Amino acid sequence: MKNGSETNAGNGRRSLPTVEDPVEGLAALPDLPGSERVFLSDGDVRVPVRRISVGAGEPPVDVYDPAGQRSVDPHHGLPKLRQPWIDRRVARGDTNFSQMHYARRGEITEEMRFVALREGVSPDFVRDEIARGRAIIPANRKHPEAEPMIIGRNFLVKINANIGNSAVSSSIGEEVDKLRWSVRWGADTVMDLSTGKDIHETREWILRNSPVPIGTVPIYQALEKVKGKAEDLNIDIFLETLAEQAEQGVDYFTIHAGVLLRYVPLTARRVTGIVSRGGSIMAKWCLSHHRENFLYTHFEEICALMKKYDVSFSLGDGLRPGSIADANDEAQFAELETLGELTKIAWKHDVQVMIEGPGHVPMHKIKENVDRQLVVCHEAPFYTLGPLVTDIAPGYDHITSAIGAAMIGWYGTAMLCYVTPKEHLGLPNRKDVKDGVIAYKIAAHAADLAKGHPGAQKRDDALSRARFEFRWEDQFNLSLDPETAREFHDETLPAPSAKGAHFCSMCGPHFCSMKITQDVRDYAASQGLKPDDALTAGLREKANAFLDGGQELYVPDAPAGGE
Amino acid sequence: MKNGSETNAGNGRRSLPTVEDPVEGLAALPDLPGSERVFLSDGDVRVPVRRISVGAGEPPVDVYDPAGQRSVDPHHGLPKLRQPWIDRRVARGDTNFSQMHYARRGEITEEMRFVALREGVSPDFVRDEIARGRAIIPANRKHPEAEPMIIGRNFLVKINANIGNSAVSSSIGEEVDKLRWSVRWGADTVMDLSTGKDIHETREWILRNSPVPIGTVPIYQALEKVKGKAEDLNIDIFLETLAEQAEQGVDYFTIHAGVLLRYVPLTARRVTGIVSRGGSIMAKWCLSHHRENFLYTHFEEICALMKKYDVSFSLGDGLRPGSIADANDEAQFAELETLGELTKIAWKHDVQVMIEGPGHVPMHKIKENVDRQLVVCHEAPFYTLGPLVTDIAPGYDHITSAIGAAMIGWYGTAMLCYVTPKEHLGLPNRKDVKDGVIAYKIAAHAADLAKGHPGAQKRDDALSRARFEFRWEDQFNLSLDPETAREFHDETLPAPSAKGAHFCSMCGPHFCSMKITQDVRDYAASQGLKPDDALTAGLREKANAFLDGGQELYVPDAPAGGE
Repeated sequence: MKNGSETNAGNGRRSLPTVEDPVEGLAALPDLPGSERVFLSDGDVRVPVRRISVGAGEPPVDVYDPAGQRSVDPHHGLPKLRQPWIDRRVARGDTNFSQMHYARRGEITEEMRFVALREGVSPDFVRDEIARGRAIIPANRKHPEAEPMIIGRNFLVKINANIGNSAVSSSIGEEVDKLRWSVRWGADTVMDLSTGKDIHETREWILRNSPVPIGTVPIYQALEKVKGKAEDLNIDIFLETLAEQAEQGVDYFTIHAGVLLRYVPLTARRVTGIVSRGGSIMAKWCLSHHRENFLYTHFEEICALMKKYDVSFSLGDGLRPGSIADANDEAQFAELETLGELTKIAWKHDVQVMIEGPGHVPMHKIKENVDRQLVVCHEAPFYTLGPLVTDIAPGYDHITSAIGAAMIGWYGTAMLCYVTPKEHLGLPNRKDVKDGVIAYKIAAHAADLAKGHPGAQKRDDALSRARFEFRWEDQFNLSLDPETAREFHDETLPAPSAKGAHFCSMCGPHFCSMKITQDVRDYAASQGLKPDDALTAGLREKANAFLDGGQELYVPDAPAGGE
Repeated sequence: MKNGSETNAGNGRRSLPTVEDPVEGLAALPDLPGSERVFLSDGDVRVPVRRISVGAGEPPVDVYDPAGQRSVDPHHGLPKLRQPWIDRRVARGDTNFSQMHYARRGEITEEMRFVALREGVSPDFVRDEIARGRAIIPANRKHPEAEPMIIGRNFLVKINANIGNSAVSSSIGEEVDKLRWSVRWGADTVMDLSTGKDIHETREWILRNSPVPIGTVPIYQALEKVKGKAEDLNIDIFLETLAEQAEQGVDYFTIHAGVLLRYVPLTARRVTGIVSRGGSIMAKWCLSHHRENFLYTHFEEICALMKKYDVSFSLGDGLRPGSIADANDEAQFAELETLGELTKIAWKHDVQVMIEGPGHVPMHKIKENVDRQLVVCHEAPFYTLGPLVTDIAPGYDHITSAIGAAMIGWYGTAMLCYVTPKEHLGLPNRKDVKDGVIAYKIAAHAADLAKGHPGAQKRDDALSRARFEFRWEDQFNLSLDPETAREFHDETLPAPSAKGAHFCSMCGPHFCSMKITQDVRDYAASQGLKPDDALTAGLREKANAFLDGGQELYVPDAPAGGE
């Protein structure tokens, strides 16, 4: 199954090998508790949501669900839900399959209707944003298993999880497991950054089992083809690699076409030079040949290939800063200008584009990144790695970067590439992947709240009401990680009866404010919520009732974190 | 040892009990690796710093060190370094011991000189900030063990860790252990929020062993004295409790004097009502008696007591929002106005003040909190809990709140009260305390960087240089948590030789950019760093050298988190 176009993957036939089974024993992951997968329908388009049931007569809360169908045998792969739509386009003789191409012709595709329903907006709006280049639907026609999703700053902020082996570590089974694990916790896209052995076959297993778009950095595989010698790379080997991966169904490619020969010396005085793998490969090629980056000079040939499949560009920031010291420097912003220039070229071909961003940036320099990107890249969606807001916390870079990610998401970044606790130290394992995804779900959701996304606060409010009313099961189920929330609660109060208790371990039964607030609320309601009147007219009466009642004092929600 | 003023604690005699030993077997914590505790001197003032040694001929990096002297027998407590300074003030007949009082008289105290050296500013500047009320040095004269520190927005951003038992859980030994653990990881102050048994004795052990200021919420103990019946509280019981705790050496008191009778009904329509324990106790008292909060009406009596010891006010935000829905509402901001009014009264007595802030606030509403607080509270230092930027991640609220904390620190908050992963779910254990402290060290440091604090970036730069040059040991030692950084690295590459390797597990030996960047750097340096000249004149030459050299390609620092 090596080296692409001779394989029969992605054409509807099931071609995954069954000998030397790499996914032997890989168990399906159970659904999150209190949830069921249900569908919103618009004709032939059925959009999955995760419906969380809530007690106390409250309505269920529907949340965006990228996890895909569960209990699927990885040998068979996921159902190819987009195949009929794609087949119609092939049958009518389309040559440019890009969603942007359709949008600009005024066509509303099934994918657009799917994301419209998923995001709660009109299909017209989706089409207009795609046509304008302000959003993309990464959806290679050879990856019909993917459930369409949209990346753009007028939609929910998305997150990407990176997986992939290296020469030092990991196997196919582990990577398929990480893929499922990532989407279970909420990853909206997944990048396969494998550089080790079995790159092609690993990717095949991932694509056939991925309900979300898959991105790659094709230069990694191209480099393997020239045995690691960057100077031996050329556009033919690169295009061959692109064709192979596009044929498999990769939905977006990171391509470092903005690392220009004249920018390379700008990195010389940096503290951390060039930290992007792709960026340094291209820098080496440029220096070795004293010629301009072949990805830049052959960019239109690349576009021609992309549109045949509808692979989206993720224009790579090969000169992104790798430290606080290097943030927002000349090299970084020079490359960004070139990415803007390339965006225009891609759009000439109706090829979808997003733009990658840093990296390591202190808080006060984050906003400039978005502001500049919007202008020089003509509002193409921004896709940033973090940024990390300090360099001093290896082991905790999911946190240092979630701070920057939340802020940059609020300022207008459309997708946030996660960082795990292992960043700078090692390859992420299953736990690291989860920690990275959860930290980024927090960042993305915080950004949605700050942007005033309609409906985003519904889940916060439902959870807060549950918290205030001591509906512990609801509080767990509505949280991003119900399993951990329950486990932490049970560490101190494991008894099942404690799940119904009107107190918790932080304050104990005699130290909880829920009761008093309920009294305040009842009283104010009975007074028609006019505080001043209430005080002059009726508080004396209430005071007497209190003293007569002799009630216990209760305080919720203020453990060692509050007072 | 119950109930205060009859004990002989804090007077220089060693009074900690040795029967029924609560700290039996409590081991001293080892120093962080690669570090030594050294002292900066200014006459009789000796300020500890943690000196991290660095390899490759680089200078050591000195970092702020609140951890205090190690290897101290907890039965003896820490040395009373401030005792001679205090004795002189007592001998000359002082009656107002507040640092603000001295500052306003033009006196530069030893504490001011200590923090000046610690922060790298002039003693005059410290005195002026204290006199102006823009910074405080919480330093009860009965807590001579504390190493002076300053809280104000023109100084390094500080963090507080909360510890303390509850009726449900924890013992004295555990709390002393959490204290040491907190300061080892960098807590600048610690609050003892105990509400369980042995409140007084627990506090005594904590104070005698704390190198950092200790804060409490005295209403908790006052409530115990009236057997949990809030309506039985009165100013006499409260003042008695304050006297007891002040005599023990508590450095700052959270006092909820801003919860006014007329504000209580404003919380009625909230999603989460009143979530502060102290706030709900006072709200209940107000409603029960239909009278104004006795902490407000007797505020000057409280001030009279505070100045005799130099206990600082931490004016509590009893009506802080407990959910995103309730952020920045009328109740919250009404109370803030009252805290501003009380600040003026405290300052009339030369009593030091800081102001507590929320809580749960979405990102776009954070800045308003600081902007208003600065105006209505006359620039008294702000001390906020988080804020949490979303409600949906119980189990991860150290992260949801570190996002808000970093931002609010940048905007001008002087001290950040940590939140642990157990927030809303249970009492924090040792691991939770560490996770909370590290998350908040990240937030505080990120804020220092964003504020452009001189010198803050030195540690980032030293670590980034180490990272770039594959000096793994330096990278670990310079990080906030060297133990975790090393452990994560060793998970993938445990061999000792890997610590000297010029690659890591993320990319492996054949996929690392350090080499190329070094080549770029050498080349540009030899060309005098004129990129354009370099390109026209010399890159051809370089290209030939590259091709002749046939060197391996290297890329650092871009694991599954980058490309």
